[in-house]
Amino acid sequence: MMNFDNLITQIKVRNKKYISRAISLIENNNSYSVELLKNIHKLIGKSYRIGITGPPGAGKSTITNELTKLLLNQNKSVGIIAVDPTSPFTGGAVLGDRIRMNEIGLNDNVFIRSMATRGSLGGLSKKANDAADILDSAGYDFIIFETVGVGQSELDIAKTADTTMVVLVPESGDSVQAMKAGLMEIADFFIMNKGDRPGADSAILSLQTTLALKAHDENTFLPNIIKSTASKSEGIDDILNEIDKHRNFLLSSELFIKRRNKNNQIRVKEIVESFVTNDIWNSARTEILQNELELITNSEISPYESAEKIIEHYKKEILTN
Amino acid sequence: MMNFDNLITQIKVRNKKYISRAISLIENNNSYSVELLKNIHKLIGKSYRIGITGPPGAGKSTITNELTKLLLNQNKSVGIIAVDPTSPFTGGAVLGDRIRMNEIGLNDNVFIRSMATRGSLGGLSKKANDAADILDSAGYDFIIFETVGVGQSELDIAKTADTTMVVLVPESGDSVQAMKAGLMEIADFFIMNKGDRPGADSAILSLQTTLALKAHDENTFLPNIIKSTASKSEGIDDILNEIDKHRNFLLSSELFIKRRNKNNQIRVKEIVESFVTNDIWNSARTEILQNELELITNSEISPYESAEKIIEHYKKEILTN
Repeated sequence: MMNFDNLITQIKVRNKKYISRAISLIENNNSYSVELLKNIHKLIGKSYRIGITGPPGAGKSTITNELTKLLLNQNKSVGIIAVDPTSPFTGGAVLGDRIRMNEIGLNDNVFIRSMATRGSLGGLSKKANDAADILDSAGYDFIIFETVGVGQSELDIAKTADTTMVVLVPESGDSVQAMKAGLMEIADFFIMNKGDRPGADSAILSLQTTLALKAHDENTFLPNIIKSTASKSEGIDDILNEIDKHRNFLLSSELFIKRRNKNNQIRVKEIVESFVTNDIWNSARTEILQNELELITNSEISPYESAEKIIEHYKKEILTN
Repeated sequence: MMNFDNLITQIKVRNKKYISRAISLIENNNSYSVELLKNIHKLIGKSYRIGITGPPGAGKSTITNELTKLLLNQNKSVGIIAVDPTSPFTGGAVLGDRIRMNEIGLNDNVFIRSMATRGSLGGLSKKANDAADILDSAGYDFIIFETVGVGQSELDIAKTADTTMVVLVPESGDSVQAMKAGLMEIADFFIMNKGDRPGADSAILSLQTTLALKAHDENTFLPNIIKSTASKSEGIDDILNEIDKHRNFLLSSELFIKRRNKNNQIRVKEIVESFVTNDIWNSARTEILQNELELITNSEISPYESAEKIIEHYKKEILTN
């Protein structure tokens, strides 16, 4: 039996080694992680959660780093969860992580954790939020979810924040057009990064035109576009100001609670589905399915009939337990 | 009660209006769609399924169109399922679809259907495969799944094919580095499109170097890189040759059946989870959750406790039914 009291005590004093260990329990789907999360839940809810997303190469990590430095100067602490679709095979992000660790990661008031999408995307949003709860219970003032805005599941993670920022670059125009729709909907505001490049102002203008078409009412925070050149530390204070502006907008009404309620709704659904899925795919039912595959491939039975058989088996198990 | 016999008869003679109607039943989660899919299952398994994916702007639609024209010249019929993350809000893909419809969509031997990721991604892979089964039962020789390779869920759709092609362009280098890992794993072969641009040959060389690092044995089809310039109809015959080569490789051994078995395994799991999720989130349990949200937001109860309560309620319902 794991000693939760000590683990929680160490998390509360922001001992990075223990925080890291707690997140590993979550990542590895260790059964203690559920107990741990239940035990810390009274500690959470104080961190302000920020989501940052956008296409690959837009400068999300650079902005996160610069924003973190600015927050550190204001004596704030920051936990970063970087959801990263790369693998050791290409190694791209590993290098980025190393640079980042040297810049801010060694600071006592910063905790950085990368979580890989590799093969686990279904449950990744749940795990990222579980990890955020650990950081929240450790008392970090800000938690930043950084994800590549390249798929619905990745966007979902950035979305479950109090404030969600979408980073674009002047060149994004064509290449992200296909993704814009999703990005438009989740952005509380946009960052036009690499703002010193030619075309930045016209890209902002074009984005403004598109945004003007969006329906809005008094409960809508009209998404601004903030220009930055993060590699030169330019515009970072404007980004932080905009975060504050959005935060105040939410806090001045019921919207803050409503947003957290909505995020918790998504969260509970993810947990329910993860528990039930684990329950269903025990070894007996995995074997039943295994034995049907060739019949399905040969069109002898329908995948729907096979699915119904599995569900029947699951329900019978509940009845006999 | 819907007249399945007539619907199925019309699907079998490839009446596009009825095929389209059947796919709409699937898209709208109409309960008849399950009955329909069970009824047609004996007809399916004959189409060869091709997945094409890659970053936005790489030329996936152009390649699909050109490949379709080539197949039409060989008296083959083609069904295309384009999974498209855009929305009417930006309109990008709508234009592309219109061009496409004029070029090949009016041909009797081609059926094109776009499916939007908008808000439904969890179940999209299931729906795309259901739609493919309709096309399969209609006797299309080839079914092409075209998806933007930008997120795990989108990649999953392209993956559930007999042959999966990944399209890159010379400029992809940096911007897709972050996605390469996922793309590397699902590609049976690569297409370097826009091959007339400067840097195409060095991009191919660099990709070859990366591929050489990949582990392989006699059961692995070593992924080739095919150069094309689809906008000038160049390299399309090479692409089709490579598809045939991969197909023959699979068919010459147990690998073809194994691959279809594996895809069916993923498929049944998706169906099971979709059924159970629908079962769980009836109005009673949605209301239970609704009533807990504020307590969770205020840290009075843990999302895990709330999830367990929902599951208990679900199990009790099974027991009393």
